[in-house]
This record gives sequence, C-alpha cells and structure tokens, in this order.
Amino acid sequence: MIYLDNSATTHPRPEVLESYKKVADLYYANPSSVHRLGSEVERLLQQSRSQAAEWFGVQSKDVIFTSGGTEGNNMAIKGIALMHQSRGKHMITSQVEHPSVIEAYRAMESLGFDVTYLPVDSSGRVNPDDVAQAMREDTILVSVMSVNNELGTIQPIQEIGQVVEQYPKAFFHVDHVQGLGKINLSIRDCHIDMCTVSGHKIHGLKGTGALIIQNHVSLFPLLHGGSQEQETRAGTENLPGNVAFVKALRFLMQDNDAKRNHLEEMRQYLWERMEDIEQVVINSPKEGAPHILNVSIPGYKPEVVIHALGQEDIFISTKSACSSKQPDVSSVLSACNLDRDRTTSALRISLSYQNTKEELAVFVKTLRKTIEQLHATMGR
Amino acid sequence: MIYLDNSATTHPRPEVLESYKKVADLYYANPSSVHRLGSEVERLLQQSRSQAAEWFGVQSKDVIFTSGGTEGNNMAIKGIALMHQSRGKHMITSQVEHPSVIEAYRAMESLGFDVTYLPVDSSGRVNPDDVAQAMREDTILVSVMSVNNELGTIQPIQEIGQVVEQYPKAFFHVDHVQGLGKINLSIRDCHIDMCTVSGHKIHGLKGTGALIIQNHVSLFPLLHGGSQEQETRAGTENLPGNVAFVKALRFLMQDNDAKRNHLEEMRQYLWERMEDIEQVVINSPKEGAPHILNVSIPGYKPEVVIHALGQEDIFISTKSACSSKQPDVSSVLSACNLDRDRTTSALRISLSYQNTKEELAVFVKTLRKTIEQLHATMGR
Repeated sequence: MIYLDNSATTHPRPEVLESYKKVADLYYANPSSVHRLGSEVERLLQQSRSQAAEWFGVQSKDVIFTSGGTEGNNMAIKGIALMHQSRGKHMITSQVEHPSVIEAYRAMESLGFDVTYLPVDSSGRVNPDDVAQAMREDTILVSVMSVNNELGTIQPIQEIGQVVEQYPKAFFHVDHVQGLGKINLSIRDCHIDMCTVSGHKIHGLKGTGALIIQNHVSLFPLLHGGSQEQETRAGTENLPGNVAFVKALRFLMQDNDAKRNHLEEMRQYLWERMEDIEQVVINSPKEGAPHILNVSIPGYKPEVVIHALGQEDIFISTKSACSSKQPDVSSVLSACNLDRDRTTSALRISLSYQNTKEELAVFVKTLRKTIEQLHATMGR
Repeated sequence: MIYLDNSATTHPRPEVLESYKKVADLYYANPSSVHRLGSEVERLLQQSRSQAAEWFGVQSKDVIFTSGGTEGNNMAIKGIALMHQSRGKHMITSQVEHPSVIEAYRAMESLGFDVTYLPVDSSGRVNPDDVAQAMREDTILVSVMSVNNELGTIQPIQEIGQVVEQYPKAFFHVDHVQGLGKINLSIRDCHIDMCTVSGHKIHGLKGTGALIIQNHVSLFPLLHGGSQEQETRAGTENLPGNVAFVKALRFLMQDNDAKRNHLEEMRQYLWERMEDIEQVVINSPKEGAPHILNVSIPGYKPEVVIHALGQEDIFISTKSACSSKQPDVSSVLSACNLDRDRTTSALRISLSYQNTKEELAVFVKTLRKTIEQLHATMGR
C-alpha cells in the first residue's frame, strides 16, 4: 500500500500507541483526585505539559491540551469573540482557511460579529498589506493558517504578526495544523497569541492536540466546568492522549531537518514528474510546504482518478478531508481564481517523512497509466 | 490496592484498550477521505454509531460522539441556548448539578440568559413541582442529572420529563454520566431530548463519550467545521475512541442486572458497617444509586482521612473530582442544607462492579483504625 493522504490523517507510530496504552492502563486515576494515585497522574500531566511547552518555546501554563485541531480553532475564535466583544466585534480571516476556522467565523457572524474574509493571490497567499488595510479600531482577532491544507501554500505569518502587533486590542491566531514540523514557526517571534496544533497529522492519535496560548490571552471557554487546563478547558484530562501527543511531537522533532529535507526532495521529484505529464497542471506554489502537492487533471473527475489509483492500493485525496463530502468545487482553489476546469479536478498528494521516492515512482507510473486508460475509455 | 474512587474515573478494561489500539493501528484513515480506506473507516464508524444507538433505544443519527461528559453537557446547554434564544432566554437547572452543567449555565448568564437554579431537599432531590413552578413561557431548557455525583441521589427524571413535555418550546437535558449502567433510564419514556454519557466512568477511555439527542433537536455546535457527526460536532472522528466507548458500553450492559445487584449488595454492606461507626454520619439517601456512598466524619479533615487510607493503598475521594481542588465546602451538601460540620468533612466511596465485599471489609477495618489513630493524635 502506498499512502499519500497524510494531510488528511497519518498512521500512528507504534511507540505512540504503546505509550497511550501504558498510560491508560497504569495511570488511570483522575488527576483532580486528592489521593496519591491522583497526584501521580497530575505529575505526569504536568510533565507532558512542560515538554510540549518546551517544543513550542512557551511556558507550561500556555499549553492547553484539546481534543484536536477543530477544537483548538473553535476555542481560539469563539473564545476571543465571546470574551472580548466589549472591545470590538470585528474579526479578520482569509478565504482559504480550514472549514473549522471559516465555519467558526460564520457562526460568530450569526451571533452579530462582523468578519472580513481576505482574498488571496493565485497561489493562495494572503497579502500582509491586505491585513493592514482590513485592520480597524474594533478588530479583536485575526486568524491566518501557517500552511494551506489543500495547496501547501505558506502564509507570511511573521509579516502578518507584525501588522496585528500594532493593534493592542487585536489577537493573532494561527492554525498550524498542517505546518507543524513541516515549516519553521516561532510563536514568539511571529507575535502569535494562539496557535492550533493536532496530533493525528503528525503520526499521533485522533482526539489529541493543543492550543498554545501566550500568557496574556484570556478566552471564554468552549467547555466550562472544572478548573482543568488553567480554567480554559474543563473536563477530566485525557492523560494518555496528551502523553501520546507529546510523544508524537518528540518523534516529529527528532532529526526534523533531515525529515524536512527528505520531504523537500520527494516533493521536488514529484514536481518534476508531474510537469512531464501533459494532462496535469500543478496548482501548488513552487515555494510551498514540503509535504503537499496539489495538481489538477482538467476534464477528469478526481473521484474517478482516486478510485482507479485505489484499485492499485495507492491512496491520494481530493481536497480537504473535512470538506470532501461537499459538492465538487474546491473553495480554496476558487479563492485563487483558478478556472473551473481546475477547481473541479484537483488532486492532493500529501507526504509523510515515512514515504519513499520508490513509492512516488510507483505512484507516478500508475497515475500515467490511469490517465491513459481513462483517456481511452472516454474516447478522447 | 483497593480502588473506591470509581465515580471520579475507572480503570479501563483490557479488552477496551485492545480494541482502541487495534482500530487506531489498522483503521487510521480519515473517514471523510473518498478513497477505499476512508470508506472502510466510515463503515466501522457507522457500525459503532448504530450499536450505541441500539443501547440507548434511539436512531443512529441521534448519537453524537464527543470527547466526554463535560463536552456533552456544554454542547447541550450552549447548543440550545445559542440556537433557540429567539424562542426565549430562560433556562432551569438544579443547585446540585456537576460543575460542567452549573458553570455552563453561569457562562450563559454572562451572555444575557436568565437561569433558575432549583433547590433540593436534604437528600439532594429536586422536586418535580418546583420544576413545574419554575417553568415559564420563555423557558427553552431544563437540565437535571440522573444521579448526583457526590451523593448518589437519584433524581425523578421521568416526572420532570413529564413536566417539561408540556412546554413544547422547552428541551430536556439529562446528565447521565453517573447513572449510566447504574440505574434504569429510558430516554424515550422520560421525554429526554439530550442525554450526556461518558466513557471513562464505565471502564472505558478518557476523551470518549456521547451526547444522545432525539431527532427533533437542533444545536448550535460547540465545534464548527466539517460536516461530521450529523453537522453537530465537527472534527476528524476519533474512531478508535468511539469504538472503545461502544465496547465499554457493551461490557457494562452485559449481565447488567447482576452487576447492579452486586453493587446494591456491596452498598448495603457498607451502609450497615458505616452506621456502626460512631463518628460517621451517612449523607447519601437510602434509596440512592447503588455505587455511591457519601459519609461525613465531622471534625476530621477529609484530606487527612484520605491520606491515611492512601498509606494503606485504599483510595476514596472527597467530593467531585472536578471541583475537589476548590475550597473545602461541598456545594452539593450545602445545597442539601447540611451543617457545616458535615459539608466540610465529606468522603465519597464509589464502587465498581469489579469491587468485592472482601475489599470493602478491609476498607471498613482500615477506616475504623484510621479514625482511632486520628482521634488519639488529636487528643480527643
């Protein structure tokens, strides 16, 4: 099997699963319980938190463990909106964000907030000048993702951070789910107030992740109740999940430069091969994240191509998994002003450091064969 | 080790952990992916959903998998409030609910909702007549738990359901986290619109659970984004967690009558022994849930008793784990109008069907010895 749908989700590492199981079995007490078992679990939880904090260059208390990327994004957006609405009700995001950001913003519109959805250029990039122009005195939040999940476009987070930084009433939120471990991002240097990360995109487990918040941010919690997670996210802590997330992080960061070089090389290899196929148009920007290559085969339905590749045990996807059951057009590619021919025929190949060039060679060969066969079938 | 803190959390069954691990490893694809791996996962997800639906006597689409009880409660309360505020802004709950209910209501008060917190009698019981009196034309939600987490008090859910049923604009939400598998509760017969359940209280895993909603209820999602969970709870589905939750449910329901009889017998045994200890006052009602016995030892700090028992490898707790790091007084016992002597010295012994009478005998003996020693130390 050749799995090239790693931006949808990844295969959990065996070591991560092993840690999960061990912790779930041995450290099952409730960390809020005042007895010794509870204290042991609480200690392990704090240890995980401080390890995560170290990776992100923040303090322990800035790590809020979540159930994943969608929760992190919703927590950041709704949390700022509901907590700071007395400061202003204007918020800014882009047209190419993940559904968990776009839909959270739309939800806040329905509650009376005013949202600006910034356009992007043909490569899916937000212009920091557009952010500067959109900023108002009543702007309380700006959300821009670090890496686009369909195209791999890298957003100018540092420049946008500098813009937002000039408005003391506004917070800066970055959805870093696709970027984690694939590009450099310093939460501190980019003036990021809230940064969403997820476990299952980095060979960790589903239902795990974190929102990293800098210490001056207070949020209206999505989950009220006990005082867990610094009173920002109530509910009995999922210690095994949190430990597993931190373990996945550690593996990701181990020899991270080598992993990224390997991804870069694979993407370059793929890029060149794709350029060689007459029917294929590359949608991703050349200077994109190293793990995503988005291409269109105009005139060919992506489901048909994906199905044919699946017959050969090769797995790629269309657009974002979270919107793939919606109708045909990719809203991200539409925002890039690409022709309908391309927005309705896009394929996303997304890599993990576990993939190999050999796998890609098989993929390219099979894709060529598939296109030929479909071409013949369609009588073109 | 004798673990009697099962209302805080339980030890996951090995079979549940095994299922989790297997599914996480083998069925890791994103169910939203259109390729074959995604479809396989989607099929398994639907299978879990329909199994859960069967246990609760509802349809598959009425099962919304969550990250646990706190999420379920928040989803129900905030979801109704924000979705149906045009119908009215009044809501009703009781003074003895779990923090994830009480605090969610307080949060909605801060957003302009009007909340009635119903009093309880000395056993922690809500009077259905009080619900009837509190109901108004603009009441949109009533939340009452099935079993109180500190006292084990069983609430008259069916009678309350009949009251709420007469107000077509009002929804009925039941926090069933402590009651699941311990008392009978028919979602349909009790006219429950939303029912919260959690995995880690039934020998399942942390980070798992469900909100069971009857089909006419629409909620403002806590988590916006993709169209997962019938568009009510976005985010990549935690299939291993959901499968594990259903597996824990299945074990719970297997010979459930026998399990409950065993719990009843153990509680009766404990009740009689506690009555025999001069310094102990029983706080739980006689007709309570079979797994919780709450007692006070006036004049003795609960932490001290718990610590002493912990030295002997016996684990019980004070009040709810979710509020146990708050100051001393139990707000649940206070709502029951018990003396401060009792509200500040409460201990909760909470049983699982895995406990034995032999363990309880050791616990009782050790508790007696502990009280004697503390008595001597305190020079009484």
